[in-house]
Amino acid sequence: MTSNRRWVLARQPDGPVQSGDFRLEETAVPTAPLEPGEIFVRNRLFAVAPTIRNRLKAAAGHRRRGAVAVGGAIPGIAAAEVLASAHAAYTAGDRMVIMSQWEDQSRLRPDTLPVPVFPLTPDMSFEDALGPCSLNSLTAYFGMTDVGRPRAGETVVVSGAAGSVGAVACQIARLMGARVIGIAGGKEKCRWLMDQARIAAAIDYRAGALAEQLADAAPNGIDLFFDNVGGETLQAAVDRMARHGRIVLCGQIAAYDRPGGAPGPADMMRLVYGAIRMEGFVVGDYADRADEGRAQLRRWLDSGELKVRIDRRHGLLSLPQAFVDLFRGANEGTLLVENDR
Amino acid sequence: MTSNRRWVLARQPDGPVQSGDFRLEETAVPTAPLEPGEIFVRNRLFAVAPTIRNRLKAAAGHRRRGAVAVGGAIPGIAAAEVLASAHAAYTAGDRMVIMSQWEDQSRLRPDTLPVPVFPLTPDMSFEDALGPCSLNSLTAYFGMTDVGRPRAGETVVVSGAAGSVGAVACQIARLMGARVIGIAGGKEKCRWLMDQARIAAAIDYRAGALAEQLADAAPNGIDLFFDNVGGETLQAAVDRMARHGRIVLCGQIAAYDRPGGAPGPADMMRLVYGAIRMEGFVVGDYADRADEGRAQLRRWLDSGELKVRIDRRHGLLSLPQAFVDLFRGANEGTLLVENDR
Repeated sequence: MTSNRRWVLARQPDGPVQSGDFRLEETAVPTAPLEPGEIFVRNRLFAVAPTIRNRLKAAAGHRRRGAVAVGGAIPGIAAAEVLASAHAAYTAGDRMVIMSQWEDQSRLRPDTLPVPVFPLTPDMSFEDALGPCSLNSLTAYFGMTDVGRPRAGETVVVSGAAGSVGAVACQIARLMGARVIGIAGGKEKCRWLMDQARIAAAIDYRAGALAEQLADAAPNGIDLFFDNVGGETLQAAVDRMARHGRIVLCGQIAAYDRPGGAPGPADMMRLVYGAIRMEGFVVGDYADRADEGRAQLRRWLDSGELKVRIDRRHGLLSLPQAFVDLFRGANEGTLLVENDR
Repeated sequence: MTSNRRWVLARQPDGPVQSGDFRLEETAVPTAPLEPGEIFVRNRLFAVAPTIRNRLKAAAGHRRRGAVAVGGAIPGIAAAEVLASAHAAYTAGDRMVIMSQWEDQSRLRPDTLPVPVFPLTPDMSFEDALGPCSLNSLTAYFGMTDVGRPRAGETVVVSGAAGSVGAVACQIARLMGARVIGIAGGKEKCRWLMDQARIAAAIDYRAGALAEQLADAAPNGIDLFFDNVGGETLQAAVDRMARHGRIVLCGQIAAYDRPGGAPGPADMMRLVYGAIRMEGFVVGDYADRADEGRAQLRRWLDSGELKVRIDRRHGLLSLPQAFVDLFRGANEGTLLVENDR
């Protein structure tokens, strides 16, 4: 390899993200010796995740995760292989899922990354690691089984239901005995949710007013709302919550593109009177239970009870468009981009 | 008694409530025979509660509790005695705490009231029933012991800390071993919180920027925020929450006066990244545990570990001003108005 292709931030996106917000740079492959604690990896497969959007703005609210400066490399979860290591825990040839960067090869410091490194066992493919057994699947697993905890017979609504997290969350709630309603954009996604994810009802938010569709689908209210979207979707669900309902805050994709962030419900008294619980979580807090989660996901996948759909794109150059597609809902399942080098 | 004095809604308050929003009517004492299920009571002592504010506007969000129409009687928690009854569970002479109305005598239908009737035992005074052992004290008790559940050593912040609910919530958290910080308006209230409620720190929100004062008082973040206020106070606390912190939504008094209601935090991603739980509750859900709560409150009161301050006003005519004072923080503890008839 003679050069390292790298996507950097061309400008901080103001409003909906566009492919022009990114710029491709071609730089020399890093050759300087690694400092202690660093590793050098080749990025083989990228997971295109919406939360990265929050790092592309200068919002002060997200102190926990640094904002990317203009000209800086775009961070991204990738399945990678170690080319060289100055870190005691890794050696050349190791395969891992890591918070890497949108480029061919990355020099990283694993101990300082916001998401723990997940080393792959030899029997796990890169696609498995970023698809069925990915952090997104684990997010759905722990968000549903540990935070949401639906009981048999309860009405569970999942937003972003055809997305990488949402589709798994829907099916886990179904496997836990709940009556599951998914919210997604477009007929095709809704059909997949009904036919493949086998949930009770799918709402196409593009086909009519969400509030009315929710009222029809959940006449007795929502016991558990698993939210990946936020904004008006969250508000519509809040307005439809049953008493003592729970809301799992997983993501707020509708708000990532908005300068003002992801505002909460219009009236907190609704939560008081309804005795409603709203709870955020991050999968990083479940690192010590990841093996348990992957083992359960693997059992469900092998038995055919859990379906995961991969939207696989080709080539590093397709990363920005894939990212833009994610926010437009123009993806069909978990969006992965394989590197062509 | 020749007439029944009754406060009715003169106009729906738009913004801060004013005494002119209420109008006194002098009507005949009801004499028509009671219908089955009704009782007729004399209101002896009123508890002036901020949540009534939410029923004085036409907000559609509060479907659970009906809005008061212009010309309608103002609802209010009162200690009352039964004058006549057509309800199997009550007889003349019974004493009770009931969701009554701002008037001398009320005709009520106990089974349809939004708050359960609390019958008084002979040894309980009206002041005890609306003060130390009141629904507000029970609200603090269940909100803190059941919803918030502070652990020893945790940092607990209570807003509206010198109010009827807040002052008890502060002290219960202290009794549970937490380090308690109260937020109140004015030096005098803060002094009471330090000297009488014996909490670790009291913040006078009028004395400086709340965010900075919170940062000073809770350098390691807030583990549990017990919110009676909402609005900017809630936002300042959200910005200061420790990871895995909990927010108990008890009331949102800062927002009751605002046409737009009580909006949630500006950015729900703060709750996601912080893995923060936010939970509303109403004391009515704990009706079957009220005896347990009152018994524990009584033990703490008798041992001197719990102090309750009563701001007692005289005369039915002082009700509107007492209500206005509540929103201006011009009360010194639990606001009770005794009837002069």
